[in-house]
Amino acid sequence: MTDRLEAQFAFLMEADRLKHVLRATSLVDGSRRENSAEHSWHLALYAMILADQAAPGVDINRVVKMLILHDLVEIDVGDVPIHSANGTVHGSAEIHAAELQAAERIFGLLPNDLRDDLRALWEEFEAAETADAVFAKSLDRVQPVMHNVALGGGTWPAFDVTAEQLETRVGAKVARGAPGLWPWVRAKTRAYFTED
Amino acid sequence: MTDRLEAQFAFLMEADRLKHVLRATSLVDGSRRENSAEHSWHLALYAMILADQAAPGVDINRVVKMLILHDLVEIDVGDVPIHSANGTVHGSAEIHAAELQAAERIFGLLPNDLRDDLRALWEEFEAAETADAVFAKSLDRVQPVMHNVALGGGTWPAFDVTAEQLETRVGAKVARGAPGLWPWVRAKTRAYFTED
Repeated sequence: MTDRLEAQFAFLMEADRLKHVLRATSLVDGSRRENSAEHSWHLALYAMILADQAAPGVDINRVVKMLILHDLVEIDVGDVPIHSANGTVHGSAEIHAAELQAAERIFGLLPNDLRDDLRALWEEFEAAETADAVFAKSLDRVQPVMHNVALGGGTWPAFDVTAEQLETRVGAKVARGAPGLWPWVRAKTRAYFTED
Repeated sequence: MTDRLEAQFAFLMEADRLKHVLRATSLVDGSRRENSAEHSWHLALYAMILADQAAPGVDINRVVKMLILHDLVEIDVGDVPIHSANGTVHGSAEIHAAELQAAERIFGLLPNDLRDDLRALWEEFEAAETADAVFAKSLDRVQPVMHNVALGGGTWPAFDVTAEQLETRVGAKVARGAPGLWPWVRAKTRAYFTED
């Protein structure tokens, strides 16, 4: 039991480092950048509040847990923004390999049963094939959009994001998991893109 | 539907302000104080990892949700530390009344069904009578203890906390919800109290 608790707390103390990982997105009031731990908290709340936007059969409890742990690999890899200067890094094989290695190390701190459970849940999120993971990914894409809207465009001008890029990189993925949500969110973004 | 989404997002955007509420506890590396949003995320992870410490029948999914929302009232009221200079404020009737008013306003941003569900879950946590709430409260008390241990005593010296006060204010409540956990945690704290 003592060894088990040592392993459980080794993981929980390591997880604290996610509070240091900064994202491209700012808080809603623009005062500072958001960190990945508070972002994960916000997304879990999104799942609780927007559960009625999920497809039938989605298990919100699993979605909440997935969102709590979805960014832990960033402790080693950092946050990779969707919109970046060269626009090609997000989703690259190199990043994916680094994230796998991070998952191996970080979930590896846990007792074996928990390591396997959490690792499987993270891999399910990453694969975005199950209904639960697809919905979780939708929320992960919607939240920064809403922050950018609150900030009058937020990081979009800095990264030269166009309405078309927002539709491809974000809109299509939100619509896949939460089809009723995207038209409402997209309407909020209209004022910040001249292309429309 | 549009009005419903407006209300859901009014709440989610307001919730962002919890990222500005600072707690007495520091991050594990001591670099800065923890905010209540990232603290709530960390506690949800605690519930997932320490589920085997809960009493039989505890529903971890409800515990996770409770912990996600348990500090939202602090947006209006701020964080009230367990150990404070005069030692009497935490749990006072005045604070409780202010928290009820905050719950009314913040959960009141939501559509009625969600308002009632979240409000009930928060009140259950506050009352600390159900097994789910008692376990959630235990985790809320354990996490800052572990941060103080990591920091060589953390905020205890500044607030003149004694081993006896730690036992009364923290230990008894941790032991109530997670009896197998407290002896292990207490042993970690021993080095920082001369009274033992």
